[in-house]
Amino acid sequence: MSTVKLWTDEEINAHPDLKLVFDDIRQVRKSEFVNNFWRALANHPTQLKNTWEQLKVVMMSEGELSPMVRELIYIAVSTTNGCSYCVHSHTAAARAKGMTDGQYSELQSVIAMAAQTNALATALQVPVDAVFDLSGS
Amino acid sequence: MSTVKLWTDEEINAHPDLKLVFDDIRQVRKSEFVNNFWRALANHPTQLKNTWEQLKVVMMSEGELSPMVRELIYIAVSTTNGCSYCVHSHTAAARAKGMTDGQYSELQSVIAMAAQTNALATALQVPVDAVFDLSGS
Amino acid sequence: MSTVKLWTDEEINAHPDLKLVFDDIRQVRKSEFVNNFWRALANHPTQLKNTWEQLKVVMMSEGELSPMVRELIYIAVSTTNGCSYCVHSHTAAARAKGMTDGQYSELQSVIAMAAQTNALATALQVPVDAVFDLSGS
Amino acid sequence: MSTVKLWTDEEINAHPDLKLVFDDIRQVRKSEFVNNFWRALANHPTQLKNTWEQLKVVMMSEGELSPMVRELIYIAVSTTNGCSYCVHSHTAAARAKGMTDGQYSELQSVIAMAAQTNALATALQVPVDAVFDLSGS
Amino acid sequence: MSTVKLWTDEEINAHPDLKLVFDDIRQVRKSEFVNNFWRALANHPTQLKNTWEQLKVVMMSEGELSPMVRELIYIAVSTTNGCSYCVHSHTAAARAKGMTDGQYSELQSVIAMAAQTNALATALQVPVDAVFDLSGS
Amino acid sequence: MSTVKLWTDEEINAHPDLKLVFDDIRQVRKSEFVNNFWRALANHPTQLKNTWEQLKVVMMSEGELSPMVRELIYIAVSTTNGCSYCVHSHTAAARAKGMTDGQYSELQSVIAMAAQTNALATALQVPVDAVFDLSGS
Repeated sequence: MSTVKLWTDEEINAHPDLKLVFDDIRQVRKSEFVNNFWRALANHPTQLKNTWEQLKVVMMSEGELSPMVRELIYIAVSTTNGCSYCVHSHTAAARAKGMTDGQYSELQSVIAMAAQTNALATALQVPVDAVFDLSGS
Repeated sequence: MSTVKLWTDEEINAHPDLKLVFDDIRQVRKSEFVNNFWRALANHPTQLKNTWEQLKVVMMSEGELSPMVRELIYIAVSTTNGCSYCVHSHTAAARAKGMTDGQYSELQSVIAMAAQTNALATALQVPVDAVFDLSGS
Repeated sequence: MSTVKLWTDEEINAHPDLKLVFDDIRQVRKSEFVNNFWRALANHPTQLKNTWEQLKVVMMSEGELSPMVRELIYIAVSTTNGCSYCVHSHTAAARAKGMTDGQYSELQSVIAMAAQTNALATALQVPVDAVFDLSGS
Repeated sequence: MSTVKLWTDEEINAHPDLKLVFDDIRQVRKSEFVNNFWRALANHPTQLKNTWEQLKVVMMSEGELSPMVRELIYIAVSTTNGCSYCVHSHTAAARAKGMTDGQYSELQSVIAMAAQTNALATALQVPVDAVFDLSGS
Repeated sequence: MSTVKLWTDEEINAHPDLKLVFDDIRQVRKSEFVNNFWRALANHPTQLKNTWEQLKVVMMSEGELSPMVRELIYIAVSTTNGCSYCVHSHTAAARAKGMTDGQYSELQSVIAMAAQTNALATALQVPVDAVFDLSGS
Repeated sequence: MSTVKLWTDEEINAHPDLKLVFDDIRQVRKSEFVNNFWRALANHPTQLKNTWEQLKVVMMSEGELSPMVRELIYIAVSTTNGCSYCVHSHTAAARAKGMTDGQYSELQSVIAMAAQTNALATALQVPVDAVFDLSGS
């Protein structure tokens, strides 16, 4: 259940500004399926457009990290935030971009290792080593 | 400041079981420097040994994700957890394993993008699309 | 699903101390509907009474922030905590107290913006500017 | 300490694209002081520019929520995220936009109240009431 | 719904290495029921085995904290992380290890109290008192 | 550094309502030392009084969990929230209430174990087993 209306294709198609974004999502992803996140954002056309434009740049533009690696990072953040929707959608996205079972398994191991040592560092309040400072001040 | 004593090299060297782990840390990392996290864990020799052994397997063993990519995932988890020590130490580790300025910049963009859309998905309580379910039940 | 029994009206009415709180909830809110949170707390009568009394003071007493603005702050905390129940119930409460669609849209934008810059500040471990310190020490 | 260099005014002024953003920050805020967050982002000019442009729209544009109320929401998110830098800078921003001591006190009470009931709702795993669902499906 | 397949008993029994772990889980817990967490981990046999072995040591070995108290701590972490699955499974585990209704009620009060004062300490950015430092440096 | 003034003993003593609370803190704890948390809350006398009264009930009243066990739960929540101040002050409180080095070591192991399996359960989005449901609905 959600706190807002989820827009159907019929409703989207009746609003040209929403339809434009949905058409672009379908074309960029080469898939007719548009997931609920975008149907929820459709309640606020500006946020729908801006979020999609920013996502395209951050996740799909040319860069030094492959789109698949970017999805692994996305899953790590979403897992740590406990965002159920985000874990589901970006695990699917990572698979679509080529994540293998072995990579998925290693991803989980790293996330679990980090969660564990984060907890220890916080419980012990370990002071940051001076050598890690790059502020230049 | 920390909630436990940070062990000096002199104190470590006086305890053979601690010295063994510190020697291994230095050899594996090819560096004399051992950061505070391990000096804090030294209060509990079993936890020191187990954490280091597990870290070696998860972060440095042969696998399908490069050690550098694993550090990027580690930074993503540590940032989301707000663990200051972990962000500092694993950013240094990622740099030591070859992270470029461009990759670091892209990492931040992905983390910030994920934080933003995680917040939106949670605020709107977007229901998970059935197609993302792989439970087989 | 929950970890405790959810009390029905019939069960509540059979316990005078629980009935007193439920009657007050209904009267203050001018609505017969009592949501599941209170039915779960009913397992511990003291916690039920104390939580309701504290909530009335914090959320509904005279003050400098309107009850609606307080609900916006509540939603912001609940979203960041990833508390699904809390997001749902306080979004409904904010609507009942007059939150418009435009205000809801702006709320989401601010939450998403804060999530994004929080992540950047944490990833970069930006040191607090001295001018922000008011401790007086 | 930070994981990146903090840019001084002298260094900023030597780069026209960075100087443009810093000039705008100073003009919009009517203050010569530019806080460390922007000096850290200066390592990545695109992120500096985009974050500032987005922040101006979300936090300072005309809207139904006053700039001060938006800062209260920002503080609520930053507190819940445990982002020390963000709590400090946005508490200062809220004060600059007129937050009174009484409003600040009420803000803390709402944040603390939400933290408490969030914990209870999560500990008890209270199921979301059907009446809160607006998905339309 | 989950991001991976949940293994049935039939599938587990067809893989000797998985069956060994499941047999041990059943014997240690003196129960035929094996919950979904282990059925999800079965996708990665090494992680299944290592997690179970580590859990046995941490949660069930001889020590100074009773197994029931360890479960209370587990619930506190899981609640704060907002991990729905973990709250459910460890509340059941605590009950199986003797947690009374009164203890469960007190646990919730402590978790809620900590959530509340954590929020206040973070909102006010209270500086750590020097007397709490044990680092020895 | 903090976002509010920290009240000195001299300033506290000049305000009878604040002095009353500080006197009670000193008497209950049998110690002259009053930590910064209370000096920060002193900016809002009502919150100071209410928080202290609630803390006394939750943490120090007769009950089925010992005061020391309650502090362990408090540390677990504070660690998971990443609240540095809270970790420091409640680790000191647990020690004052008799926490041994062995118990502290086990506490850390449980917190780290829970953090790790919480991450796995969230990454895999393990569905809650029906048998864990006690809602009675």
